[in-house]
Amino acid sequence: MIVIKLKPHIAVKQISGIINLIEKSGYIPNISKSDGVTHIGVIGDEQAILKLPFRRLGGIAALSRTTKPFKLTGREYKSADTQVKAGHTVLGGRKVVVMAGPCAVESYPQVLGIARAVKKAGATVLRGGAFKPRTSPYSFQGLKEEGLKILAAVRQQTGLPVVTEVISSSGVGLVSRYADILQIGARNMQNYALLEEVGKTRKPVLLKRGMMSTLEELLMSAEYILAQGNPNVILCERGIRTFEKYTRNTLDISAVPLLKQMTHLPVIVDPSHATGIRSLVAAVSKASIAAGADGLIIEVHTNPDKALSDGFQSITPIEFSRLMTDLSKIAHAVNRTI
Amino acid sequence: MIVIKLKPHIAVKQISGIINLIEKSGYIPNISKSDGVTHIGVIGDEQAILKLPFRRLGGIAALSRTTKPFKLTGREYKSADTQVKAGHTVLGGRKVVVMAGPCAVESYPQVLGIARAVKKAGATVLRGGAFKPRTSPYSFQGLKEEGLKILAAVRQQTGLPVVTEVISSSGVGLVSRYADILQIGARNMQNYALLEEVGKTRKPVLLKRGMMSTLEELLMSAEYILAQGNPNVILCERGIRTFEKYTRNTLDISAVPLLKQMTHLPVIVDPSHATGIRSLVAAVSKASIAAGADGLIIEVHTNPDKALSDGFQSITPIEFSRLMTDLSKIAHAVNRTI
Amino acid sequence: MIVIKLKPHIAVKQISGIINLIEKSGYIPNISKSDGVTHIGVIGDEQAILKLPFRRLGGIAALSRTTKPFKLTGREYKSADTQVKAGHTVLGGRKVVVMAGPCAVESYPQVLGIARAVKKAGATVLRGGAFKPRTSPYSFQGLKEEGLKILAAVRQQTGLPVVTEVISSSGVGLVSRYADILQIGARNMQNYALLEEVGKTRKPVLLKRGMMSTLEELLMSAEYILAQGNPNVILCERGIRTFEKYTRNTLDISAVPLLKQMTHLPVIVDPSHATGIRSLVAAVSKASIAAGADGLIIEVHTNPDKALSDGFQSITPIEFSRLMTDLSKIAHAVNRTI
Amino acid sequence: MIVIKLKPHIAVKQISGIINLIEKSGYIPNISKSDGVTHIGVIGDEQAILKLPFRRLGGIAALSRTTKPFKLTGREYKSADTQVKAGHTVLGGRKVVVMAGPCAVESYPQVLGIARAVKKAGATVLRGGAFKPRTSPYSFQGLKEEGLKILAAVRQQTGLPVVTEVISSSGVGLVSRYADILQIGARNMQNYALLEEVGKTRKPVLLKRGMMSTLEELLMSAEYILAQGNPNVILCERGIRTFEKYTRNTLDISAVPLLKQMTHLPVIVDPSHATGIRSLVAAVSKASIAAGADGLIIEVHTNPDKALSDGFQSITPIEFSRLMTDLSKIAHAVNRTI
Repeated sequence: MIVIKLKPHIAVKQISGIINLIEKSGYIPNISKSDGVTHIGVIGDEQAILKLPFRRLGGIAALSRTTKPFKLTGREYKSADTQVKAGHTVLGGRKVVVMAGPCAVESYPQVLGIARAVKKAGATVLRGGAFKPRTSPYSFQGLKEEGLKILAAVRQQTGLPVVTEVISSSGVGLVSRYADILQIGARNMQNYALLEEVGKTRKPVLLKRGMMSTLEELLMSAEYILAQGNPNVILCERGIRTFEKYTRNTLDISAVPLLKQMTHLPVIVDPSHATGIRSLVAAVSKASIAAGADGLIIEVHTNPDKALSDGFQSITPIEFSRLMTDLSKIAHAVNRTI
Repeated sequence: MIVIKLKPHIAVKQISGIINLIEKSGYIPNISKSDGVTHIGVIGDEQAILKLPFRRLGGIAALSRTTKPFKLTGREYKSADTQVKAGHTVLGGRKVVVMAGPCAVESYPQVLGIARAVKKAGATVLRGGAFKPRTSPYSFQGLKEEGLKILAAVRQQTGLPVVTEVISSSGVGLVSRYADILQIGARNMQNYALLEEVGKTRKPVLLKRGMMSTLEELLMSAEYILAQGNPNVILCERGIRTFEKYTRNTLDISAVPLLKQMTHLPVIVDPSHATGIRSLVAAVSKASIAAGADGLIIEVHTNPDKALSDGFQSITPIEFSRLMTDLSKIAHAVNRTI
Repeated sequence: MIVIKLKPHIAVKQISGIINLIEKSGYIPNISKSDGVTHIGVIGDEQAILKLPFRRLGGIAALSRTTKPFKLTGREYKSADTQVKAGHTVLGGRKVVVMAGPCAVESYPQVLGIARAVKKAGATVLRGGAFKPRTSPYSFQGLKEEGLKILAAVRQQTGLPVVTEVISSSGVGLVSRYADILQIGARNMQNYALLEEVGKTRKPVLLKRGMMSTLEELLMSAEYILAQGNPNVILCERGIRTFEKYTRNTLDISAVPLLKQMTHLPVIVDPSHATGIRSLVAAVSKASIAAGADGLIIEVHTNPDKALSDGFQSITPIEFSRLMTDLSKIAHAVNRTI
Repeated sequence: MIVIKLKPHIAVKQISGIINLIEKSGYIPNISKSDGVTHIGVIGDEQAILKLPFRRLGGIAALSRTTKPFKLTGREYKSADTQVKAGHTVLGGRKVVVMAGPCAVESYPQVLGIARAVKKAGATVLRGGAFKPRTSPYSFQGLKEEGLKILAAVRQQTGLPVVTEVISSSGVGLVSRYADILQIGARNMQNYALLEEVGKTRKPVLLKRGMMSTLEELLMSAEYILAQGNPNVILCERGIRTFEKYTRNTLDISAVPLLKQMTHLPVIVDPSHATGIRSLVAAVSKASIAAGADGLIIEVHTNPDKALSDGFQSITPIEFSRLMTDLSKIAHAVNRTI
């Protein structure tokens, strides 16, 4: 990618000239703003792009090349933090965002009860699965559209924006009609057809790291979405697979500060899937915020032992409320709010 | 799953009676033959299924429960080896099947040249990627339908059946029109929408193990395909991710005999992706056949250093020919042919 | 193990009677106090131990069996936190302990300079390697006894107790003469001869988790030390090996709360080796304390780029001082001091 | 390292001159022969070594630098295969060597019975553990010196050389008095004090790869032994740790051809520990020889279910005998004997 840094007070006409030249030459201009400065990223044969007669047009402060394989997602292209909005909630700002709710949507009263409880405790996004990708074809696969309707109805009642998973490219349209944030699960992190499809929407996308994916691969998957024109991507560390058997996965805590150095996108943590153990969720949530995470996505269930999926890793609304009090202290200790 | 073992000389009318009862009760009967004995598998609430009045119908030798999470793919349900046919080639029989060809389809002459060479050396299936799932959105993504047409044309010329990857559920129809075997890549092993879609065809499916998937998860993904009614699944070990950095992945050789014990499906190995290093392909191929693999899928390129993808792990037609001679000796040492 | 819980106001004579019976029967009594209650653990054939005539002696509140493979290290045997003392420093109490210093001891002025700086910033233990286990036999192996003398001299000057590594059972005597805490490195976590040797001393032992060891194995290695009669063991999470290549190791942050649930021993974290990257040390240190760690061991070097080993992961005294200010806030947020 | 390649017909006097110059300058000459050509390796400051007045002495064909961190173990230093002798058995030649015996030495009749059976089937080295490094301090730790005496007595009876583990540097003298090959277990692969101690003997050393060690680290550990003057090292792949849970470890089969390319030392495989499952030993043994291994070390027990350790992975003498017949066919298929 060639990054074109524009001069501070460049005229609109000059900008259009530059964009015209890029498009006429067969490339797509990617525009971003960082600390008041506008950058245009152009991806393709770098030698050829550098030969275009940009200098003749004026208004350009500098031309540079990115060195990393991830382009639009990298700090090289855009140094300022990206903020992603869902309803009234902003991810990537000073305020830490907590998403909470049941693993699977089971019924309207179930979701509504949990939603009210987590909202009261300070959560600002409601999570809940309507489409559940399960290892076994014989396990409960979610309520599907019925589940989406429940989520939308609960949003209506509570005002909480909704994040829910989309598991196939053909389902993107349907889920987009109900959800505020489209979640891509760990197993689909490299389902490129799905990434491209959510990239064509402008909906915020919560992209979970694959169980065996490197951080570079996570950024490359985000790049698939940004390359389609959708800059609203939130990255989520949710534990990787290792030899350790006590926990379901191993939370890669250093991924949080490392991703924050590599990319301008918001980074959140899923302590429920990362550990798979209820009694570890609180400690790991505190650690994540201390490490610099922009948010958390936590499974909460009124009756974890009767949950249709993942009950052993869900906490109760009371535990959640207590956790939020503790998280607030950690957030303040790192100069943030919650 | 409840497995109903029928008596050897059961009348057709009795079989229909049993099937009717199953279907009338809302279940799907899965029928298989093993060593001349017919079994019917019924998946669902086992207590309820066992209460159905099967005994009244006669012709039933035994009723049993499977203990493993994988049902239709397990040896408990079907003890005899499944044989999968593609063109004149049979996978899962005494003859070891070698699939060979370029990583990516680049042009008709390229594929034809390689196909003729590998056929002469003894390969009986042609491999080649028309849709290439790439980590970067900016990398070469394959010739797509143009590539499929080339593969079909080369099949016409050489008689070799074609295996090629399908990367999205919406692409299954298109790829099915050209390919003899549908490949599901490692990154899509848990793309359930895609698995269900190929499960609805009756095409042979080559299912690759995910880089971080357990053997049980691989079988559960195969189960998704069989549960849709398509029994023609070939499993492929292609290396898993570990801390070792010299090789691209770590070939899990014991997966071969272990899978052969767990399932009746054919098991093959991809030595090219498993190692990522040309000079290791021969040794690892020999090891795979010695360990009991039913086949291999090997990347061959006339000019590996100029390949559009994965050249460093492709071997030349001459190396392939030499390897086939060596593999023939190993096959004979384990009582098979090639 | 059979755990004998004694009554609160048992007479000394009764205790001796119980101990005599245990010893006479050929077992070793392990005595611990938890919340004012004394427990005696007896390891061996549980059926035989339970048949001993304990009841006749009186003073016994309850007899129970441990269910875990780790006995003396487990919370089942001793529920109250163990506190380990080194000089004036106590590990395992409310105060978080920070150990800091250079990777390798290079010279007296080097160590003295760093020691004074880290002490001023709040560190209460000095770390520094005199014996360096190196992957290559041709790398700098440490100043050995000369290095130990430097550490002792700096302790003399600063009052900071010293933690330093011992790499062979024959070296335990020598290192014990100079060090306050004996460190067992990750590569030696299952060097049982060495574990037994440090178990025979009463020196505090800092036991690092092996790069590929499970938490249960870590506790079993601690058990080797406790079984020799030395209860002063501090556990250290320092990152495990995974497929991720950006960081040197992957810090298993959930190991901290999990170990605290499993064992009564203090648990600390080594953010320097866990990440191998200077710019991640601060974030990971904060996360560790938020997760409940009892301490940290951090590499600090006045001139990281000229360090004889591991410079790329060492922070400067100025960075350390800033970090201590931040850590203090986190410690307060989790109700601790530093 | 600087490698000095001598001329074919160099006079003895000239060789002494070169060696004198090296020693006088403070370096240690490492002499090896490869295909009739003598090489002298000199490790240390390469700039300084290259400035020594070698050219003046004559008889030198070439001077070169090694590029790999492993020096004496690398093919760069010595291209021809090293052959290691133990009794009448030669490792690293055309004949594949099979070592077999019980996991732990239990009694003289037990070992003698197994030894006679495996010898009859074609094994040429007897394995058996007298010192057993166990995860738990409370598990059976082996018969120790009593076990060594049994092994020596069985060697007396059968003529089979003995390989047995040494677990501490202080035990090297004792084990050396009884054993023909000193085994370093996986857990001790980076116990450098132990490596140096066995390096000071001239006994063959069987060095097992650590569960989480890279191939480069394995070679660096071998380098510790060679650097002490003992060139008789046999490398052993025995499985690494991964996320897969069905097998005890994951055998890294490509390590075999890769090590054979990197080093001149013999490479064998331990299929028993690599899989941990009796029913996989045969397939994995065949694969290892097909991949180019110079030998195998297999656990055999007359009554696996009553073995004091690792019975679940031991095969019976009858199974071993059948396996040897199969292995013989594979060996011939790769131009070797067994």
